[in-house]
Amino acid sequence: MAVEDESIGVAVKDDRRDLEFVFNPRSVAVAGATNDPSKVGFGYMMWLMNLGFRGKIYPINPKREEILGLKAYPSIRDAPPPVDYVISNIPAPLVPRLAEDCASSGVKVLQLFTAGFSETGEEEGIRLERELTQIARRGDLRVIGPNCLGVYCPKTGLAIPGLNLPKESGPVAFLSQSGGNANELTNIGSIRGIRFSKVISYGNACDLNETDFMNYLAHDPETEIISAYIEGAKDGPGFVAALREATARKPVIMLKGGRTECGTRAVASHTGSLAGSDEIWDALCRQMGVIQVDNLDELADLLVAFLYLPRPEGRNVGVIGVGGGASVQAADDCASAGLTVPSFPAELRAELKRFTPEEGTAITNPVDTILLFTPEEFRKTIELVAAWPGIDLLIVHVVMDFTFHWPDGLKVMSDIVDSMIEAGRAIAKPMAIVLRTAGALEVWRSFLELQERCLGAGFPVFRTMGSAALAVGRYVQHPAPRGDSDD
Amino acid sequence: MAVEDESIGVAVKDDRRDLEFVFNPRSVAVAGATNDPSKVGFGYMMWLMNLGFRGKIYPINPKREEILGLKAYPSIRDAPPPVDYVISNIPAPLVPRLAEDCASSGVKVLQLFTAGFSETGEEEGIRLERELTQIARRGDLRVIGPNCLGVYCPKTGLAIPGLNLPKESGPVAFLSQSGGNANELTNIGSIRGIRFSKVISYGNACDLNETDFMNYLAHDPETEIISAYIEGAKDGPGFVAALREATARKPVIMLKGGRTECGTRAVASHTGSLAGSDEIWDALCRQMGVIQVDNLDELADLLVAFLYLPRPEGRNVGVIGVGGGASVQAADDCASAGLTVPSFPAELRAELKRFTPEEGTAITNPVDTILLFTPEEFRKTIELVAAWPGIDLLIVHVVMDFTFHWPDGLKVMSDIVDSMIEAGRAIAKPMAIVLRTAGALEVWRSFLELQERCLGAGFPVFRTMGSAALAVGRYVQHPAPRGDSDD
Repeated sequence: MAVEDESIGVAVKDDRRDLEFVFNPRSVAVAGATNDPSKVGFGYMMWLMNLGFRGKIYPINPKREEILGLKAYPSIRDAPPPVDYVISNIPAPLVPRLAEDCASSGVKVLQLFTAGFSETGEEEGIRLERELTQIARRGDLRVIGPNCLGVYCPKTGLAIPGLNLPKESGPVAFLSQSGGNANELTNIGSIRGIRFSKVISYGNACDLNETDFMNYLAHDPETEIISAYIEGAKDGPGFVAALREATARKPVIMLKGGRTECGTRAVASHTGSLAGSDEIWDALCRQMGVIQVDNLDELADLLVAFLYLPRPEGRNVGVIGVGGGASVQAADDCASAGLTVPSFPAELRAELKRFTPEEGTAITNPVDTILLFTPEEFRKTIELVAAWPGIDLLIVHVVMDFTFHWPDGLKVMSDIVDSMIEAGRAIAKPMAIVLRTAGALEVWRSFLELQERCLGAGFPVFRTMGSAALAVGRYVQHPAPRGDSDD
Repeated sequence: MAVEDESIGVAVKDDRRDLEFVFNPRSVAVAGATNDPSKVGFGYMMWLMNLGFRGKIYPINPKREEILGLKAYPSIRDAPPPVDYVISNIPAPLVPRLAEDCASSGVKVLQLFTAGFSETGEEEGIRLERELTQIARRGDLRVIGPNCLGVYCPKTGLAIPGLNLPKESGPVAFLSQSGGNANELTNIGSIRGIRFSKVISYGNACDLNETDFMNYLAHDPETEIISAYIEGAKDGPGFVAALREATARKPVIMLKGGRTECGTRAVASHTGSLAGSDEIWDALCRQMGVIQVDNLDELADLLVAFLYLPRPEGRNVGVIGVGGGASVQAADDCASAGLTVPSFPAELRAELKRFTPEEGTAITNPVDTILLFTPEEFRKTIELVAAWPGIDLLIVHVVMDFTFHWPDGLKVMSDIVDSMIEAGRAIAKPMAIVLRTAGALEVWRSFLELQERCLGAGFPVFRTMGSAALAVGRYVQHPAPRGDSDD
């Protein structure tokens, strides 16, 4: 199972070839498929059909002739070969028998939503997981899980739970030991313009684990950015080697579950992993250039930065928008995040003053715009600031609520955002946009629309100046990986 | 101007008496009132009328007979006395003349939205502000601003910009050098259940400054929690004394503008303040027990905690909800925030297991509930955990998006929230609620409704487990102030 990969000089297993069946199966059988809409065995059928799975779908249920309009089969052995991929939603005690059927029918991958294995900490669960692993190994069957959601791969139409999974692919992979986190980041991504090559929820990792998937993603031509939620590594040295592979080629952003003692204990009851010492992980990540985040929102912010912001040449930022306390906050946020907010020279200030209402407006960096600015003046301000060689990138920010209560307030805000986009396209420097709102329903509706408009035009959007500065600051300071492809 | 206050043993100015007119004026004149809805002079009229200002409102405009249905007067001198409070929206060069009129007409307070003074850094602006201050001092006229929004006081109906200012009073004061921040926190508060006694935007602070207001609020019987956005103190020793007064009586939560070099420079162009060294502020805050925050969202989170969470007896927290990665994240978040997530004893685990689906569910602390839980089981879980003496408070969390795509998903979530509220009312321990969503419009609508329901029932609501843990952790660790009232 191990071959020498000359390009990297270390032994890698041929898991990467096995994993092609994980992401590109010719057919999927759903064991435990049912017509009862409250059951996950119904859900997986729906989710696959809804996402438009490209291959055959075979519902497996000994008591039904037909499920969701598709012919049902009593067992995996009865389904028309080849059955490449099986999703199990049946109770844990029945899984060894299912695994035997899979192995004898030439199934390549068994993915178990089914839980009740080693994560319970109970003897029976641990025994069942060991039995499953042995059957799989004997039968050349690869297992994802147990206790996981499986794989979302828009290109082939493999689905995890969620009726609103985007059908479009994107360059981001998310490798997540937690199904909930896989689900949540996919949801956040669908709103924030993050599209995925693969989302993988792999649970207890009794066979395929973080090392296998990290290795695969490192070389996956469809993945340009790797994000991960990891609770622990089954094979320390292997994972370190995989991380080295990955970070040499692509940005890797990681959320580590179990960073505290309480969290470590929660990890044990979640996927039965050993979380490992926080210090060792930190040191490893620093050494490899892995970007660590503290939660999914931070992860999403970084993904938005990596996806939408062209790499600026330095960390000097021009901040434009709002004013007063928000400008002070912006300067503090940027400086805290390792960005610099350089003072404007007298000539630039003089140019800005030619059309800026002087009273109550700071014409420096950050530049106040308050609400008296017209969209045209907003555009001119961005272009003038961008033209100054002293800055490398721009962050423009608006507080949507300020104009909301004015006559035509939403229209005013929409015009301002259009002028920001227009200016952002005209300038030669990267620009990030902050759309801030307290979240009243009508403003939120407008926020979602404007966010989509900005993302559609290719600009990253953040909810707060603090999160924007943090993400942009870390992005700017992250060295671009080699990006070599040896595949 | 200084009297001995025996109860506290230090000299305090009688500013507190002057300040009664700031919050309880019998009449307000709006200088620069107009019928043009795009102008701030129209806005202030509208905002006052909309909030239902209790006294007389006099529009001042030499060119109009009537504004918004009210008789207009050519100057302050022509308005029927007493005119206690004047709001200025006229250009800066006309302000000295206005101040003279105010002084000669017995006006108590002049509040200047008008900007163009010392914050410009220009000689003329600095000269104008000096002139204004001298006129005010000679004429026993107190000045708020210039370059500020003024005062929002729901009880008397004084308003800052915003048509949706809540009419109800609450126990929170917000003292803000920035008008934008005053506006933004008021907006956030209107959605998150934070109600205010007074919101004060005081800008350049040429006369009344942070020290005067902090002193007043320390003794204000209508204020139980003081929050502040401060860019610098005009009178260091005075402000320290005022802070000592305040922190001895009430929790004080502060956002300091200009915590970095970039921010300090932005402060100078905003309100012309000297931000002071970050280290000195930090030391001062630590010594006084002031809670420092990094942004307005953190401030709002802390206010929600202080307002809605009864003080728990310790920092042991029981976490209930969601599951998997979110439980691990919750444990990490709580531990990072100084809370403890103690393991449950075997008996409690056994009781919970009697009705918890074992597979894929961690029955420990944090307790997973995933989506298979019924509202009834959710309620029972909360009650069982709360009854265990090993925990002092509960945080329950749901991810709204998980159920959203199920048939009747919003109804399911609504029922779960109801069961949380029902259980929270039945137990004897404080409980905080986290309602999490990626923010799709339909889910956001439901989020706002459920948040209001929880707040209405008296439970604090947070958007993320991280922000909940941070706010609750800091609240729990903050010693309760004496709460003496010497007024």
